[in-house]
Amino acid sequence: MTAFSTSEATTNKTMPPSDSKHRVTQFMQQLQDEICQDLQRLDGIATFTEDSWERPEGGGGRSRVMREGAVFEQGGVNFSEVWGDHLPPSILTQRPEAAGHRFYATGTSMVLHPRNPYVPTVHLNYRYFEAGPVWWFGGGADLTPYYPFAEDAAHFHKTFKQACDAHNSEYYPTFKRWCDEYFYLKHRQETRGVGGLFFDYQDGQGQLYKGPDANGPAAVYSAALSNIEPRSWEDLFGFIKNCGRAFLPAYVPIVARRQGIDYGDRERNFQLYRRGRYVEFNLVYDRGTIFGLQTNGRTESILMSLPPLVRWEYGYQPEPNTPEAQLYEIFLKPQDWAEWTGAA
Amino acid sequence: MTAFSTSEATTNKTMPPSDSKHRVTQFMQQLQDEICQDLQRLDGIATFTEDSWERPEGGGGRSRVMREGAVFEQGGVNFSEVWGDHLPPSILTQRPEAAGHRFYATGTSMVLHPRNPYVPTVHLNYRYFEAGPVWWFGGGADLTPYYPFAEDAAHFHKTFKQACDAHNSEYYPTFKRWCDEYFYLKHRQETRGVGGLFFDYQDGQGQLYKGPDANGPAAVYSAALSNIEPRSWEDLFGFIKNCGRAFLPAYVPIVARRQGIDYGDRERNFQLYRRGRYVEFNLVYDRGTIFGLQTNGRTESILMSLPPLVRWEYGYQPEPNTPEAQLYEIFLKPQDWAEWTGAA
Repeated sequence: MTAFSTSEATTNKTMPPSDSKHRVTQFMQQLQDEICQDLQRLDGIATFTEDSWERPEGGGGRSRVMREGAVFEQGGVNFSEVWGDHLPPSILTQRPEAAGHRFYATGTSMVLHPRNPYVPTVHLNYRYFEAGPVWWFGGGADLTPYYPFAEDAAHFHKTFKQACDAHNSEYYPTFKRWCDEYFYLKHRQETRGVGGLFFDYQDGQGQLYKGPDANGPAAVYSAALSNIEPRSWEDLFGFIKNCGRAFLPAYVPIVARRQGIDYGDRERNFQLYRRGRYVEFNLVYDRGTIFGLQTNGRTESILMSLPPLVRWEYGYQPEPNTPEAQLYEIFLKPQDWAEWTGAA
Repeated sequence: MTAFSTSEATTNKTMPPSDSKHRVTQFMQQLQDEICQDLQRLDGIATFTEDSWERPEGGGGRSRVMREGAVFEQGGVNFSEVWGDHLPPSILTQRPEAAGHRFYATGTSMVLHPRNPYVPTVHLNYRYFEAGPVWWFGGGADLTPYYPFAEDAAHFHKTFKQACDAHNSEYYPTFKRWCDEYFYLKHRQETRGVGGLFFDYQDGQGQLYKGPDANGPAAVYSAALSNIEPRSWEDLFGFIKNCGRAFLPAYVPIVARRQGIDYGDRERNFQLYRRGRYVEFNLVYDRGTIFGLQTNGRTESILMSLPPLVRWEYGYQPEPNTPEAQLYEIFLKPQDWAEWTGAA
């Protein structure tokens, strides 16, 4: 019988099992499969085309795209696993313990651009890293409506809140606020949409964010969870699986409700204009895009998130008292959507 | 009589005159006026609309936009002058002498997005900085064709080469290469177009680039000119004026030659697709955009460079032996366009 001191037991509990990479990778592929299958059924016309690719420095992936569907003008669902000698500098500053170690990263990410402006764009990403003594999960999902409905925002949030609450009641409020701050376009003073969940550096050991931005959301929200440490690797992996599986029930009912709404040039033009914000966010701020480009990722897969058709217009302002103005005034500011009860 | 040592005389010669800011600002406004006037005449239908704006931290500008013209689907010409307590970190790392000093910056910038895919997009920017003991000019102009003509690329380069050669025979070869390296999309392994001129940190004192990227183009090309130092402020200002005035003769004849060429959906679709590269460059790499967003610049004016309509397409590859393939094979790699003689 081996005796452990408390701290050794804690360390052990939070260590990944020996088959961690295999299990997470298998889940990420399965998530991609399940999502693609259901989206094809939902669209009814278009199917996903798959490109398998290898990364010269190690790893590869499978990128799946659906185009010109009945529901989805474009949808991309990527799975990838990459490894290499060292993480890029942008990540090492935040996880200095990983310096000098090889890394492994796997994840699934998705962006859907529907045709009908009443159906919101949606994004999902779950990812897992191991590098020497450290490991962590990150991810989330967020909703970007054009002609928004409070009911849809509330349904999306409530579904993810339920998945979070099954693990820890602090997850939803923390990751919801982190999402509002992460998907924020500072130069526009707008959120990207109605948010959802976002988190990073979830390692169960209370390892806080150590990057340069000491007052940024990563520092604040990873500190907010330090009182519930330690969490086991199995706990966290279970949480990730539940979040991943919450996506279809969170989004599909919204598509079903809105897909049949008639629209004309006005709505289409506004949708194309607002898609410009998606491009601005992904190219200027998005960590996943920056990580991909820095690790010599597959450009076509990284930029699959960009919309098929986009418009920019100098000086656009919505007319007061229109649905477009309502988007800006209510839906592009953080709101407690999970508390929404249907009252005006 | 005061006696100067050689080094004091040198310092004096390269110091700006007392009315430097006023003179450069006046020139930048005049350049905006001249360009707008000629572009309106060339377009024949659309006119520029002006927004004057003030920057709360100091300064302001005038943004002019032309939309839905006969020639120009969108064109933006900005003038701005801004000042403040300190330059943003991205510039201070390259000009550490400016730390702790107030700054003044003025410039004119322009991007034109023509409607006809046979007419190239064009960009121009000239700028001037003063901050404590340092001052410098930067700028350039570059051409981005969709359905390219060697004759047009050669005309554009030869016109700017002439403007450069009137000042120093090392300018054109140095600033042409700097342009090829600056307007390079690493993630696509493509130049933005056929280039032109690009330069920065021209201060006449042989002050080299001191930023973190010791082997980057700014370090290499500012060192390449150190053997022709010192140059006076008046020399450099004269050079900037000549470059600015070379724009209309460099570009207008190209528009005149190509504006009448018929095109259909194939050419329009390819143009919209290639405009995506312009967005990728401006949001991911462009220093002017980053400076603007970091200094709390006017977002609408900074992003006026983005095209009015853009398309992304996963996995697009031009068909071999087509005009689209020729763009990639010949025109999106650095070429000695000023040497072009019309031979195939």
